[in-house]
Amino acid sequence: MQELKGIGASAGIAIAKAYRLEEPDLTVEKKNISDSEAEVSRFDEAIARSKEELEKIKEHALKELGQDKADIFSAHLLVLSDPELLNPVKEKISTDSVNAEFALKETSSMFVTMFESMDNEYMKERAADIRDVTKRVTGHLLGVEIPNPSMISEEVIIVAEDLTPSDTAQLNREFVKGFTTDIGGRTSHSAIMARSLEIPAVVGTKAATGTIQNGVTVIVDGINGDVIIDPSAETVKEYEEKHNAYLAQKAEWAKLVNEPTVSKDGHHVELAANIGTPDDVKGVLENGGEAVGLYRTEFLYMGRDQLPTEDEQFDAYKTVLERMEGKSVVVRTLDIGGDKELPYLQLPKEMNPFLGYRAIRLCLEEQEIFRTQLRALLRASTYGNLKIMFPMIATVNEFKEAKAILLEEKEKLVKAGQAVSDDIEVGMMVEIPSTAVIADQFAKEVDFFSIGTNDLIQYTMAADRMNERVSYLYQPYNPAILRLITLVIEAAHKEGKWVGMCGEMAGDEIAIPILLGLGLDEFSMSATSILPARTQISKLSKQEAESFKEKILSMSTTEEVVAFVKETFK
Amino acid sequence: MQELKGIGASAGIAIAKAYRLEEPDLTVEKKNISDSEAEVSRFDEAIARSKEELEKIKEHALKELGQDKADIFSAHLLVLSDPELLNPVKEKISTDSVNAEFALKETSSMFVTMFESMDNEYMKERAADIRDVTKRVTGHLLGVEIPNPSMISEEVIIVAEDLTPSDTAQLNREFVKGFTTDIGGRTSHSAIMARSLEIPAVVGTKAATGTIQNGVTVIVDGINGDVIIDPSAETVKEYEEKHNAYLAQKAEWAKLVNEPTVSKDGHHVELAANIGTPDDVKGVLENGGEAVGLYRTEFLYMGRDQLPTEDEQFDAYKTVLERMEGKSVVVRTLDIGGDKELPYLQLPKEMNPFLGYRAIRLCLEEQEIFRTQLRALLRASTYGNLKIMFPMIATVNEFKEAKAILLEEKEKLVKAGQAVSDDIEVGMMVEIPSTAVIADQFAKEVDFFSIGTNDLIQYTMAADRMNERVSYLYQPYNPAILRLITLVIEAAHKEGKWVGMCGEMAGDEIAIPILLGLGLDEFSMSATSILPARTQISKLSKQEAESFKEKILSMSTTEEVVAFVKETFK
Repeated sequence: MQELKGIGASAGIAIAKAYRLEEPDLTVEKKNISDSEAEVSRFDEAIARSKEELEKIKEHALKELGQDKADIFSAHLLVLSDPELLNPVKEKISTDSVNAEFALKETSSMFVTMFESMDNEYMKERAADIRDVTKRVTGHLLGVEIPNPSMISEEVIIVAEDLTPSDTAQLNREFVKGFTTDIGGRTSHSAIMARSLEIPAVVGTKAATGTIQNGVTVIVDGINGDVIIDPSAETVKEYEEKHNAYLAQKAEWAKLVNEPTVSKDGHHVELAANIGTPDDVKGVLENGGEAVGLYRTEFLYMGRDQLPTEDEQFDAYKTVLERMEGKSVVVRTLDIGGDKELPYLQLPKEMNPFLGYRAIRLCLEEQEIFRTQLRALLRASTYGNLKIMFPMIATVNEFKEAKAILLEEKEKLVKAGQAVSDDIEVGMMVEIPSTAVIADQFAKEVDFFSIGTNDLIQYTMAADRMNERVSYLYQPYNPAILRLITLVIEAAHKEGKWVGMCGEMAGDEIAIPILLGLGLDEFSMSATSILPARTQISKLSKQEAESFKEKILSMSTTEEVVAFVKETFK
Repeated sequence: MQELKGIGASAGIAIAKAYRLEEPDLTVEKKNISDSEAEVSRFDEAIARSKEELEKIKEHALKELGQDKADIFSAHLLVLSDPELLNPVKEKISTDSVNAEFALKETSSMFVTMFESMDNEYMKERAADIRDVTKRVTGHLLGVEIPNPSMISEEVIIVAEDLTPSDTAQLNREFVKGFTTDIGGRTSHSAIMARSLEIPAVVGTKAATGTIQNGVTVIVDGINGDVIIDPSAETVKEYEEKHNAYLAQKAEWAKLVNEPTVSKDGHHVELAANIGTPDDVKGVLENGGEAVGLYRTEFLYMGRDQLPTEDEQFDAYKTVLERMEGKSVVVRTLDIGGDKELPYLQLPKEMNPFLGYRAIRLCLEEQEIFRTQLRALLRASTYGNLKIMFPMIATVNEFKEAKAILLEEKEKLVKAGQAVSDDIEVGMMVEIPSTAVIADQFAKEVDFFSIGTNDLIQYTMAADRMNERVSYLYQPYNPAILRLITLVIEAAHKEGKWVGMCGEMAGDEIAIPILLGLGLDEFSMSATSILPARTQISKLSKQEAESFKEKILSMSTTEEVVAFVKETFK
């Protein structure tokens, strides 16, 4: 028996035989060719057959996984008809009189390196697409069979270095019980697909393909990120029980889909979801989300080479508001800069982007971008229950200035006969420490706060949460963070305003009892965390949690808080 | 009459005729030469004559400005005998058979670009030295007279693009009443020299040489950074009065050199100085400093290619402690990373260095560097009144761990028979917001706090203080900052501990009344700010300042606080 540690990318436990998805040997040698015309048509032939295959996979994905997953293969089909990729390959074949495999390899690796060097998640995913498409076309050129997971006809756990989008799209849930890969993380394609398919998955093990042989029994625990190879009968039994317990828990969660979130002693809080695109609303409703607590609008601006138009934005906001059917939607205005770059804005390189010219700072300076977004929101406001919040506010004057611009645009629209809702709540993110310290001053100006704990923790501890060397300082349970959260909640309630939280902490099982006791009104998290959180809260007493408030706030370290919460709220 | 705006680099007002320090025309053309041997000896000849001149300037600087200013010319003399510069020039003359001027120009500009590309203040100064030396040698090669400010024999104000170290070293205070340059800032050579010579100076005007003609009357106001060209009689009179008022004020300040710092109602606080090298102690004592509130030890590590030895550090700490003659010296342990890089440590490039692996984070990880510094400090402790503080502490555990390492090293030294003082106070910098928010927890562990407001403001407002685009958020008077400072002072005093401040805010005339009212015990600032601060405090009543505490802390913006303080403490 052997154990591997990886990243739990999709919850659940699977036990089955290992099926190694062998990377086909696609080693390409440079060969000189005489008839380049014949070689170019051989290349075209391979492109055509790849397109055929992708059309079939896209169909399968649409049926099994829904539109946005199928869209990935539309992107692949676009790559296959992109002259920017194909022409240089053909030119290379003719000018250098080299074989098509080599010309393709050279051209595509140039694109992959370029995209991967861009410090931007979206462009890295484009690199994965190009690598995936190149593999498929090269397979046809070399006459090498590309493994086709959809052909699997017995219960298996897939073992691979990484799963390309087309691999994961072909996974047939009936037989593929789970998978484990060497590389990848929670946000890579394979992980996102596993969660949609609800197939347990552990990624980033670094050693799956090196250790697991074909046919050997494997256990994949996607909750804790463990992979057990050739387990003893006893271990298999233990994990079967865990699997059943997980299924029971999932069933328990499912019962609460349409229930409100109420503590044991009758206190109601709102569980909302964080979303990035209109397509995410489906997941919110399926998981019993009572609202959207954070709509990150920057996705509308990313992965393109110019700003989205007012109408494009209007359509997106309108769709989300309509799909949420009157449930509240809190939209965060543009938060780019920091680690979210928009190449087409050509913002200057900064030594410390997280402490730089981003979000509301940029919007108050380059107002046309800001006003376009606000107009689109105001126009969409009549299609649902819209709330607007500004990110990265540091001073009271910044909030006042941003709100004044909103009201100015509203006035212009109303004058021009445009219908605009009259009860749009306007609030702000509390993610900069100064706003928590004098929350009483901000509470007079806002309709609500939403605490962005990811950044609030980062600035309060002066530690970049993306920097592994200082990640030990990213401490959500540090008493300093809990005291700042308390300041914000008390200040808001004193002015009759509500407080939500949209950082990862809001869905964290250790934080939830504390936050309930501190009086948080709304918890906004990733959709899949909502039902577990609702179940947890239903077993907690708000009064009991509140009774521990002073004790927790007077502790001096994270370790003390965690130990106390685990002990008290077992 | 015309006005220019620049940076007030050295206080005081000067009125005199303009003396343009013309940059000699040193344009160099590439010429092919036949006899390279003769050309090399022509080059050697020019080097020799430059050395002679520099020896004379060094002597003059030693007499007029003291050792550390003279050291600059030792550095220049070193450059003139540095084979790494000279050999490539001679090789270029022989291999490319080009004239010495061209060979020198090519080689030195390569070095200048390399040094200037290093994001490090010290290396940029090295670039200025090489440019200065190259100018001198090229002058000799071209037979062009380099202007020699020491030849000036009437009262003048020097007007130049920039003043090289050798220019400023030759300034004869008897005639040179002040100067103004196009480029440079508060920390450039010329500014530092002007302050030592106490010659009024305005740098960074961008337009001095472009606007001011030789012989025209010029007023230089080094306090406000203003330059007035061809002033009316009335303006001259106005500035003469300002000049006399400034001299009177300086005389008033001078009376308090050896006086304690006491408010109008008898409350004593300690005014200390921030220093970077042992040579700075002279300025501390000359300006009536009661202690060193911050000894930045990173200068010992910079501008070299390996770590300083334990003995090198011991010598530096011992010298400072001895020169301070029993007055307290608060030494900050190593604070590198962020904008202070040590190339020889090869630390990984970080996306946000100010939120990264720096200071105590690095020292707790790479303990040998930390332990070496602590041993040097402990050994020096018997030579004066040493206090030690750790920078960039974020959690209580970090402080406990750092203090445990100090006590471990102390135990080892004592066991080995080394004398170590028994009353070394151990404290910490409060510059990370978390430590201010739960200052009551830290106050149980430390002997004192020193509030590092430069970084505290930066993290609390999430705005990089070196980034011009967000500099408006660097707000020392923001009520959030003042409330954090209050938390720290109240927490410390409750535990019977003292609180100092070593950010720029401590010497700021708007902040001083507020800080006095909040109960700050020690104000540590640049030496030249001490006497003005002592004078200001002597006219303030602590009780009166304290009575405004609640009012100020309940304000919502910086602007409100500044207006109130200006109005109340006129």
